[in-house]
Amino acid sequence: MSRLGAQTLAFDVPVAITAQTSIVGPKEGKGPLRAWFDVILEDDLLGQKSWELAESEMVCRAVERTLDAAGLAPERTQAMLSGDLNGQIIASSFAARALGIPFLGLYGACSTFVQALILGAALVSGGYLDNAVCVSSSHYCTAERQFRFPVEMGNQRPPQASWTTTACGCALLARSGGAGEPRIASGTIGRVIDLEIKDANHMGAAMAPAVCACIAAHFEDTGRSAADYDLIATGDLGWIGRNILMELFHRADVQMPDEKLVDCGASIFFQEQDSHAGGSGCGCVASVSCGWLIKRIRSGELKRVLVAGSGAMLSPVSCQQGQSIPGISYAVCIEGGAV
Amino acid sequence: MSRLGAQTLAFDVPVAITAQTSIVGPKEGKGPLRAWFDVILEDDLLGQKSWELAESEMVCRAVERTLDAAGLAPERTQAMLSGDLNGQIIASSFAARALGIPFLGLYGACSTFVQALILGAALVSGGYLDNAVCVSSSHYCTAERQFRFPVEMGNQRPPQASWTTTACGCALLARSGGAGEPRIASGTIGRVIDLEIKDANHMGAAMAPAVCACIAAHFEDTGRSAADYDLIATGDLGWIGRNILMELFHRADVQMPDEKLVDCGASIFFQEQDSHAGGSGCGCVASVSCGWLIKRIRSGELKRVLVAGSGAMLSPVSCQQGQSIPGISYAVCIEGGAV
Repeated sequence: MSRLGAQTLAFDVPVAITAQTSIVGPKEGKGPLRAWFDVILEDDLLGQKSWELAESEMVCRAVERTLDAAGLAPERTQAMLSGDLNGQIIASSFAARALGIPFLGLYGACSTFVQALILGAALVSGGYLDNAVCVSSSHYCTAERQFRFPVEMGNQRPPQASWTTTACGCALLARSGGAGEPRIASGTIGRVIDLEIKDANHMGAAMAPAVCACIAAHFEDTGRSAADYDLIATGDLGWIGRNILMELFHRADVQMPDEKLVDCGASIFFQEQDSHAGGSGCGCVASVSCGWLIKRIRSGELKRVLVAGSGAMLSPVSCQQGQSIPGISYAVCIEGGAV
Repeated sequence: MSRLGAQTLAFDVPVAITAQTSIVGPKEGKGPLRAWFDVILEDDLLGQKSWELAESEMVCRAVERTLDAAGLAPERTQAMLSGDLNGQIIASSFAARALGIPFLGLYGACSTFVQALILGAALVSGGYLDNAVCVSSSHYCTAERQFRFPVEMGNQRPPQASWTTTACGCALLARSGGAGEPRIASGTIGRVIDLEIKDANHMGAAMAPAVCACIAAHFEDTGRSAADYDLIATGDLGWIGRNILMELFHRADVQMPDEKLVDCGASIFFQEQDSHAGGSGCGCVASVSCGWLIKRIRSGELKRVLVAGSGAMLSPVSCQQGQSIPGISYAVCIEGGAV
């Protein structure tokens, strides 16, 4: 209900994450985090006629499983905040059509899940909604043909390219919640920052400056430092982008111990899995947050985590027109343990 | 701070519209509402190299003019809620890059401006933000090549096609505000509804069911009827879509006197202007609201208006895959006079 500083909202009325679901594709299901995901798809077409319909079906399944776990009927779910990488966010809107839940469509590229958590928490904490489901997805085959080339072309990928994950994460927010339930404590809204990266395959570099600025703003607004968090998770810079971010923190004089910072894109694949720079896509930070981070907060292993989602605000048109790639980042503080 | 019903949020702490700007292109500037718009562009390329950059420049100018009118510096503006029809909302995100305001990207197709007003009002009324700028744009030449064909092709348009407006509307929200200042009283979040329209040129038909359901939900949640409003403005169904909506109201037993309902798309052009079914695009309801409706509330001519923005959630990919076109609608109640 209050503002902590220039860019950070504090949720004085606690907003609990009452249930969450992570769904990933077959490749992601062979990565280091495979034991943490709720569903590993055997067929990434999910029985659909197109990759886009498959992605939408994945969103539906993630929402349905989350609501089932919480014992909440779709018709009693008051809002679905959702977005994806497809033009005009069709994976989300087609899922919202099937689910029938009042819909708020968002676009923050790969940062969308964190943007949804912040807006959803504000609506719930402020008393506007009793509950809200926050979800975001990506699919390797929809994103490749949206932003680069159809996978059928067998196009070569440069080493700095990230691999768009086939993944979806969904979190149900509600007021109160029992002690120890993960809860959203605050959220920082980032600015769009552009250091003139023009390589659409080098998204870690395009997003790192926005992540650095957003985390620095979060620390400034809250009077905290990395020492106040068990973990700071970025999503999704990949291995190269994470190194750039560490260098930017160093230059900006932001203390960031190397062991405190994990990147979702650098965590979801083994380097031997040929994903090049690591994982990316709206579903990466969403599935890793719901599968790996929130579960560890729920179990008490982690007490306070800052999740900084980042998005590269490019489009096929802006790239073809030779424009550089602006980045955006949002950061959300998730806490566990006694209130 | 409270919920009025299943889909409607009430803003008990008043949220004032402290300033607003409407910018339209040359064609819109020859229409019936020309006297109401703040800026009529002579050159719809705005001195830029591409239509997409021109649309983004229009967003920048609308925000800058709005902040100037309110005497608010961009660096003291706490959030920009914005979206447009371009894939990955590049008109909005590129404008946010230039303006440096913390950015929340939204996508609700042509309903985006109303979605922004509802979310912005919740963030301001809930005390999370002191102010928020809500903006949405469209450009005929970016939308045509995004959804249909480049204008250079001189493609024929069927009579049910609407004309995407070159337009932008921007409203600055802040708490309190003086008596008589227009204020956002409540907002209704719609569901995605699809009656299986597959003609991407017939968006009025695709959206009308969602508008009918959203306005009916608003009436149900608030215990009001059309009689409680001076005007109900839909955006943007056009002339054909408006007729379909009246028929849907009749079948759903929702009383709607013909003279109470104006459609922004059916109001922005003269029928002789060869716009076929009327105006559409994210900028239509935004510019008509900021230019025509909010000014008349500010002057005291209108006391209470319901603006129901609607969006057709299609994408080039979903159309090419033969999918039908889901619709979404949001409704916002704007009041004037004594608090």
